[in-house]
Amino acid sequence: MDTSVPVRAAYAADQGPVLDYAEPLAVVWAKGIEGVQAVLRWASETGTAVVARGAGTGVSGGAHATAGCIVLSLERMNRILELNPLDEVAVVEPGVVNADLNAAAAEHGLMYAPDPASYRISTIGGNVATNAGGLRCAKYGVTRDSVLALDVVLADGTLIRTGQRTFKGVAGYDLTGLFTGSEGTLGIVVGITVRLRYLPVRTCTIAAFFPDVPTAASGVLAVGTARVQPAIMELLDGATLAALDAAHGSALAARGNALLLIQTDGFGAAAEADVVREVLAGLGGTVSTEGSVEAERLVDLRRHSRGSGLAEQLRVGEDVAVPRSALVGYVAELERMAAAHRVGLRVVAHAGDGNLHPTFWVGTAEGGGQQRLDAALDESIAVALSLGGTITGEHGVGQYKLRWLPAEQQEEVLVLQRRLKSLFDPAGILNPGKAIPGV
Amino acid sequence: MDTSVPVRAAYAADQGPVLDYAEPLAVVWAKGIEGVQAVLRWASETGTAVVARGAGTGVSGGAHATAGCIVLSLERMNRILELNPLDEVAVVEPGVVNADLNAAAAEHGLMYAPDPASYRISTIGGNVATNAGGLRCAKYGVTRDSVLALDVVLADGTLIRTGQRTFKGVAGYDLTGLFTGSEGTLGIVVGITVRLRYLPVRTCTIAAFFPDVPTAASGVLAVGTARVQPAIMELLDGATLAALDAAHGSALAARGNALLLIQTDGFGAAAEADVVREVLAGLGGTVSTEGSVEAERLVDLRRHSRGSGLAEQLRVGEDVAVPRSALVGYVAELERMAAAHRVGLRVVAHAGDGNLHPTFWVGTAEGGGQQRLDAALDESIAVALSLGGTITGEHGVGQYKLRWLPAEQQEEVLVLQRRLKSLFDPAGILNPGKAIPGV
Ligand SMILES: Cc1cc2nc3c(=O)[nH]c(=O)nc-3n(C[C@H](O)[C@H](O)[C@H](O)COP(=O)(O)OP(=O)(O)OC[C@H]3O[C@@H](n4cnc5c(N)ncnc54)[C@H](O)[C@@H]3O)c2cc1C
Ligand SMILES: Cc1cc2nc3c(=O)[nH]c(=O)nc-3n(C[C@H](O)[C@H](O)[C@H](O)COP(=O)(O)OP(=O)(O)OC[C@H]3O[C@@H](n4cnc5c(N)ncnc54)[C@H](O)[C@@H]3O)c2cc1C
Repeated sequence: MDTSVPVRAAYAADQGPVLDYAEPLAVVWAKGIEGVQAVLRWASETGTAVVARGAGTGVSGGAHATAGCIVLSLERMNRILELNPLDEVAVVEPGVVNADLNAAAAEHGLMYAPDPASYRISTIGGNVATNAGGLRCAKYGVTRDSVLALDVVLADGTLIRTGQRTFKGVAGYDLTGLFTGSEGTLGIVVGITVRLRYLPVRTCTIAAFFPDVPTAASGVLAVGTARVQPAIMELLDGATLAALDAAHGSALAARGNALLLIQTDGFGAAAEADVVREVLAGLGGTVSTEGSVEAERLVDLRRHSRGSGLAEQLRVGEDVAVPRSALVGYVAELERMAAAHRVGLRVVAHAGDGNLHPTFWVGTAEGGGQQRLDAALDESIAVALSLGGTITGEHGVGQYKLRWLPAEQQEEVLVLQRRLKSLFDPAGILNPGKAIPGV
Repeated sequence: MDTSVPVRAAYAADQGPVLDYAEPLAVVWAKGIEGVQAVLRWASETGTAVVARGAGTGVSGGAHATAGCIVLSLERMNRILELNPLDEVAVVEPGVVNADLNAAAAEHGLMYAPDPASYRISTIGGNVATNAGGLRCAKYGVTRDSVLALDVVLADGTLIRTGQRTFKGVAGYDLTGLFTGSEGTLGIVVGITVRLRYLPVRTCTIAAFFPDVPTAASGVLAVGTARVQPAIMELLDGATLAALDAAHGSALAARGNALLLIQTDGFGAAAEADVVREVLAGLGGTVSTEGSVEAERLVDLRRHSRGSGLAEQLRVGEDVAVPRSALVGYVAELERMAAAHRVGLRVVAHAGDGNLHPTFWVGTAEGGGQQRLDAALDESIAVALSLGGTITGEHGVGQYKLRWLPAEQQEEVLVLQRRLKSLFDPAGILNPGKAIPGV
């Protein structure tokens, strides 16, 4: 436990926009399951709020401290307890970093498929609590699709095990799914059994530059219409290319105003890549040739840079998802909104899933910047919803997106969720004020 | 509505073992969502139990009538409301038969992946309510993995929409997952939005006969160790081959005491099939050659025949799943148990998922047959659990497997499930006595 000022400050917020800043009373590092149980029993007795925290890389404020809370860090529970290559299953503590599990699995020709761009720093526990997506979930699915069983400590300190070690199982209600994505509001995840997948024998990477973002987006649809399922299908707009150029000294923006990065994998990777190249060239894309080393380097760049932008900018990254057919129209709408509200815009997208991360920004020095930023954000959400989309494809509601949830979900559903929350956490000590709107 | 004796009898049970027979007061066919809402409002007011029913192909007694209930059939709500090939999404009423959706999707080069062997007769609503598996879920996942959103009528008649139309979405708790597999005990599914997948450009089918079941099971592991992910990986034992021979005049049993049927698909299908054939031949299997027409015919046979057995037999089919590494040992154990309890045994397995369907049987004329049958069943469950398995991989708990659930799930989990049930259905009118053990 640490109650020192610098530590409390360091653990006060994740990487999401902060609405009202609060420092925790203390930071507690769990060393094991019994420790977590003891903390929750104490918190229940004293009515103290508990904010679970993995690596704090969340971008929705799910791990923000709230007034009078303690932060329960799981980062030191970071052992891979089992990795069984025949069962194709791993059992890990919540604080294991995604990349560490993948490195261990790779020794057996296996991988843990869900790979958020933060995979080198975020924890499996945090990934589960947010139901994280990632680059290759276009083909392999999101975190939920790889989680078989969970060990969860409930608000009163009770330890339960949900799910099963087998690939399939339908005994009882799907509690595993219910805890996945619940952002620390229903229980603390203290153990995770995941299914591993086969490391592909081969991957082929394609980079295609386009004159504009809508054409690149139509490339995503065209690959789908050719009935090819890439493992990765990322879209970067011109402003993102310019930001990468600034950070890495590259000259990408000169080559087009949009970049599509596609990776096919497995035994059919080469044949799939042929089809993809043909389809994208047909749309006027400047397409990398077979075996392009640059294309692979660009995927690495995309993976490892979130383009954090400049200190003198006020910016918010979004996480909407839209049905695939709405992609082209939506990216055009985003550009229109940015111009109308006079805010900067940069877009990267897990385009294969219709999941977009537009970032809007204004200069901090500009008068009325915050208002214009909020107006652009609100409009981007409203338009995504009107197209049949969602306010959050993978980052979670956390604290920041609470205000938009009632625009997506009907009151009856919100009520049901509140009642679920009360069932699991009657005293309301688990990450209060996050994930679902309060009464 | 129909209250005639023959109709009530026809809708009294699904295809699962009947524990205590009851006829419904009436059978009601829903024509639309409002009708379902009206029925549930009436049922709530009168305290009448409602048993939802799709095609009645369930094998766990989930759709069995209970004393004083009405059966609410969804089979006439069978329209495909939308099939959007660009979004790769379909919206269907619950009574749509799985094969009909697949036929409609195929016109666009798409498929609805989850394909229970009953796909030509079972409904999507029933598939959702049981979280059905199937043959190709080895690669494409179970029903849950293809369901994006649900329209559900709650016990009090309220209509809610869960999930989203996009491939990814993490807004709010995962109610879609909670309803999926809940066997009509939490709400009535009246609309389903599913994700479609690409029809593979190519499939390659391999049939391999083995001298015994454990060797065939070790073939499943060996294909995995070669890091090839088949779409289908089915195992049939000698008794199943003999039953197929009897039904179809084939001569399969003469060729081996176990058959492995494997299908690879997609752009890499041929290359994957090469690896599979090599691996299986290395284990001593008699492996079909490339492009074997017989191999494809055998998969069809497997799909379309459940080997229902003889009238003078008392038999129960099981649905355990075990971790993959336990497959070989478990099939050997099953044979030992059958001999020890002097009961007949026949095994088919979705072996890629470690999901086995052993069928035990005794002659109805034999004294003490029922006791020996029950003893064999109980032991097969106990052994599967001791290996880290589950009592039900895909068929659901229904009515028949209730007695085994407490052996798999701890009391705290059972209590949570009961509380979830009360939250959604305080009066207990939705399929009472199914899926989770009562108090
Ligand atoms: C550079 C960068 C790239 C990113 N790329 C992606 C991406 O591609 N896809 C994506 O989905 N996200 C992405 N994210 C967001 C973030 O990394 C994910 O949400 C990640 O899953 C958070 O993991 P964490 O360990 O940092 O969790 P934290 O941020 O510490 O916590 C996240 C939430 O989970 C809860 N929580 C954490 N651990 C537990 C536990 N053991 N039990 C219960 N609740 C817990 C917290 O209370 C909080 O609500 C990115 C973030 C960054 C900074
Ligand atoms: C030959 C044969 C092969 C089979 N193969 C497989 C297989 O490979 N994989 C597999 O998983 N199963 C298999 N099954 C079992 C069965 O087909 C599945 O469980 C199927 O999903 C049931 O669908 P149904 O429409 O017949 O539902 P029903 O049997 O009518 O109902 C099943 C359960 O769902 C509930 N229910 C039905 N519709 C709704 C609704 N709209 N809303 C709420 N609850 C509802 C019922 O109350 C019941 O609890 C097989 C069965 C047979 C006879």
